[in-house]
Amino acid sequence: MDLLTIRELYKDQEKYLDQEITIGGWVRSIRDSKSFGFIVVNDGTYFQPLQVVYSDKLDNFAEISKMNVGAAIIVKGTLVATPQAKQPFEIQAEEVQIEGASAPDYPLQKKRHSFEYLRTISHLRPRTNTFQAVFRVRSLTAYAIHKFFQERGFVYVHTPLITASDCEGAGEMFQVTTLDMDNVPKTDDGKVDYAQDFFGKQTSLTVSGQLNGETYAQAFRNIYTFGPTFRAENSNTTRHAAEFWMIEPEIAFADLEDNMELAEAMLKYVITYVMENAPEEMKFFNSFVDKGLIDRLENVVSSDFARVTYTEAVEMLEKHNDKFDYKVSWGVDLQTEHERYLTEQVFKRPVFVTDYPKDIKAFYMKMNDDNKTVAAVDCLVPGIGEIIGGSQREDDYEKLAARMEELGMKTEDYQFYMDLRKYGSTRHAGFGLGFERCIMYLTGMSNIRDVIPFPRTVNNCEL
Amino acid sequence: MDLLTIRELYKDQEKYLDQEITIGGWVRSIRDSKSFGFIVVNDGTYFQPLQVVYSDKLDNFAEISKMNVGAAIIVKGTLVATPQAKQPFEIQAEEVQIEGASAPDYPLQKKRHSFEYLRTISHLRPRTNTFQAVFRVRSLTAYAIHKFFQERGFVYVHTPLITASDCEGAGEMFQVTTLDMDNVPKTDDGKVDYAQDFFGKQTSLTVSGQLNGETYAQAFRNIYTFGPTFRAENSNTTRHAAEFWMIEPEIAFADLEDNMELAEAMLKYVITYVMENAPEEMKFFNSFVDKGLIDRLENVVSSDFARVTYTEAVEMLEKHNDKFDYKVSWGVDLQTEHERYLTEQVFKRPVFVTDYPKDIKAFYMKMNDDNKTVAAVDCLVPGIGEIIGGSQREDDYEKLAARMEELGMKTEDYQFYMDLRKYGSTRHAGFGLGFERCIMYLTGMSNIRDVIPFPRTVNNCEL
Repeated sequence: MDLLTIRELYKDQEKYLDQEITIGGWVRSIRDSKSFGFIVVNDGTYFQPLQVVYSDKLDNFAEISKMNVGAAIIVKGTLVATPQAKQPFEIQAEEVQIEGASAPDYPLQKKRHSFEYLRTISHLRPRTNTFQAVFRVRSLTAYAIHKFFQERGFVYVHTPLITASDCEGAGEMFQVTTLDMDNVPKTDDGKVDYAQDFFGKQTSLTVSGQLNGETYAQAFRNIYTFGPTFRAENSNTTRHAAEFWMIEPEIAFADLEDNMELAEAMLKYVITYVMENAPEEMKFFNSFVDKGLIDRLENVVSSDFARVTYTEAVEMLEKHNDKFDYKVSWGVDLQTEHERYLTEQVFKRPVFVTDYPKDIKAFYMKMNDDNKTVAAVDCLVPGIGEIIGGSQREDDYEKLAARMEELGMKTEDYQFYMDLRKYGSTRHAGFGLGFERCIMYLTGMSNIRDVIPFPRTVNNCEL
Repeated sequence: MDLLTIRELYKDQEKYLDQEITIGGWVRSIRDSKSFGFIVVNDGTYFQPLQVVYSDKLDNFAEISKMNVGAAIIVKGTLVATPQAKQPFEIQAEEVQIEGASAPDYPLQKKRHSFEYLRTISHLRPRTNTFQAVFRVRSLTAYAIHKFFQERGFVYVHTPLITASDCEGAGEMFQVTTLDMDNVPKTDDGKVDYAQDFFGKQTSLTVSGQLNGETYAQAFRNIYTFGPTFRAENSNTTRHAAEFWMIEPEIAFADLEDNMELAEAMLKYVITYVMENAPEEMKFFNSFVDKGLIDRLENVVSSDFARVTYTEAVEMLEKHNDKFDYKVSWGVDLQTEHERYLTEQVFKRPVFVTDYPKDIKAFYMKMNDDNKTVAAVDCLVPGIGEIIGGSQREDDYEKLAARMEELGMKTEDYQFYMDLRKYGSTRHAGFGLGFERCIMYLTGMSNIRDVIPFPRTVNNCEL
């Protein structure tokens, strides 16, 4: 159908003023008096709606006036400037065609609904202002991330979702199976007979694409993943979802410093892209969701990120232990309260904390010369704390094998990963960005359920 | 690290000729004589490798000469033009530093390996010419798809992977569970007690994001999904994988004609983008994988796609029934042999086949006035047959409910989907593009296992 979008009208109004145009959209509100009426229409292409003025000269005046909120209409008319009104223009309708009526029990009436209520109608909530804004920003952010990496020649790798490895603890993974749950086949010694499962072995949903990603970095040099990951953690918080998206770049011939430069450039790029491409939405968040949002993001873009080692950071934090619920000392993992104190109070800008104790970090991180710390890095930002976690990877076969043995892991289970250290190993590094946490950061939304179209959490898998 | 990429050298050679530069990469081949040697290096950023010349003036001449294929090196030297050679330039090395040696049993020796063998080392195969080309094209294609939709204002929607609905047949779905398989909890009446499962109900991996996608099209007008989908089909063919990626745009205020225009524009855009951004890779495929590839793709870009109804197509095909294994008659689903005959022999260009019998298509497709056919469309392309399948959706509540009842489906199970027809329904349409099939089409690769980094198929879930 040949319809103009409301975005086109706003972006190029000079072109359309005083012209006859046709648009389609959904009724946000409608009010009428005896001989004329006003309809506010949103067509989903632009944050601002469009006002339609109609009069009893239209044959179907009565029918139009009886429409409910949510109805779909197609309006033909003239776009006229409205210099006295808060909106820049309106359509004076010559024709209002009802494309699809809306039943009187439409759940989104013209009033403020709570986010809790809107979560129960996840198929309709994108029709509200807040969720129009959230999910447009989500889309733009995803694209900004692709654009950032592609413009730098990174290769996008689809690492697998179904996996037979359980490197980060099988207890938190979802199992994937085609076995008959009513009657699970067993072997002679009473174990589940996974030989009969679809893949001939036990499989789960991945918790990270990193190890697979590393294999491609050792071929393409710079790669990134962007795909779903899963955690079967039984934690019912505002920050955990069972299904979420992650971005995991991996760079070869690169060390921790290169990793930090990449992370800083990426964050700045993404924030800038979203602020430029969704200014109306960002203004909305700044007014109605999180008052300091735009200032905070602008501050991130214009700051040089600070750098501090974990050891130095702990020294700084120990002086303020009276302020914390969890007291800090060398060796403990930093909590959000510590991270936020560092970035908000001490540095007043984003900060990279590096070189964490090996015992609180993963086996694959590169051991530092002190043999106590590893070349890990977390990026902390004001308002949220950790947003990115990464490391330089252990690229030395012997050191990696020793560390794995120390942790009771078998190198045989990771033969492909060991191979990377055996055949043309390079220093390399990478990080992970939780996509939803990034969206929460960009929008000020405080519950992860409100930045995922159809969230999956404990006991919740609707639609 | 401050290394130039081989891509930069090729793209801007004037700038670097006769300059001292440093590059890093992996040894593809090495040969030496008494006092000098040649190394062919690939750094993963460009399809063409770089030749390094080194001599016994280097302290580690002997060590360099002993390197195995696959070693990682960092080379400092001068880039010099080589007008007599097939490659445009080479590096005369002043320093060759071995970043990571390669063990003598490196599985990728300088000879041609079969695709079958390479599948057994999926972590190393991206280091070969063919798979460098395949996976760079895969990355570029993904980006081209995002770029196409984002430039047109489409909103990218992440539809869920874990789902409690089983609209397209639970038999082909993977179950997702955290129940203890060794000891599946049962209710009093002996059924699996899914109340104890992570989501409190039975869940599976999605086979399509379409129904969820439609909810967002009724809010944003134009949306697309791009994410993984799963089929637990026990079919061991060259075209089926258990885990693959799909693109599913959905457009509101749009009919079948709009849908076809979108599909045609998208295919042309993606082909053009890949040919422009991976010319070396495409030339390689055209020479070594599929001789007619580039001609065929160029023909698609420059053709107006043909349009024919299923009924007309069947009439055309029936005249040639002697040529087919499966005979054609009205009512049967078209096989690949028929599809290819239509697009390659009859039309000699891509063709949209529309208005299929309702009985061979899905419940949500819009019923035509004849009450026999639905507003479905398949896009057929030379060399492959069907590449895209889509339809206009049934937007009338009563007609949809009647069709579902006819098929024994319960509207209560699809309440959210029915709601879209109750509150501001619009004519709308969409299609699905299997991403891997698209990559096979663009590269000429004939086995789906060779276009997925770590393929998952029956009895195969490695790495």
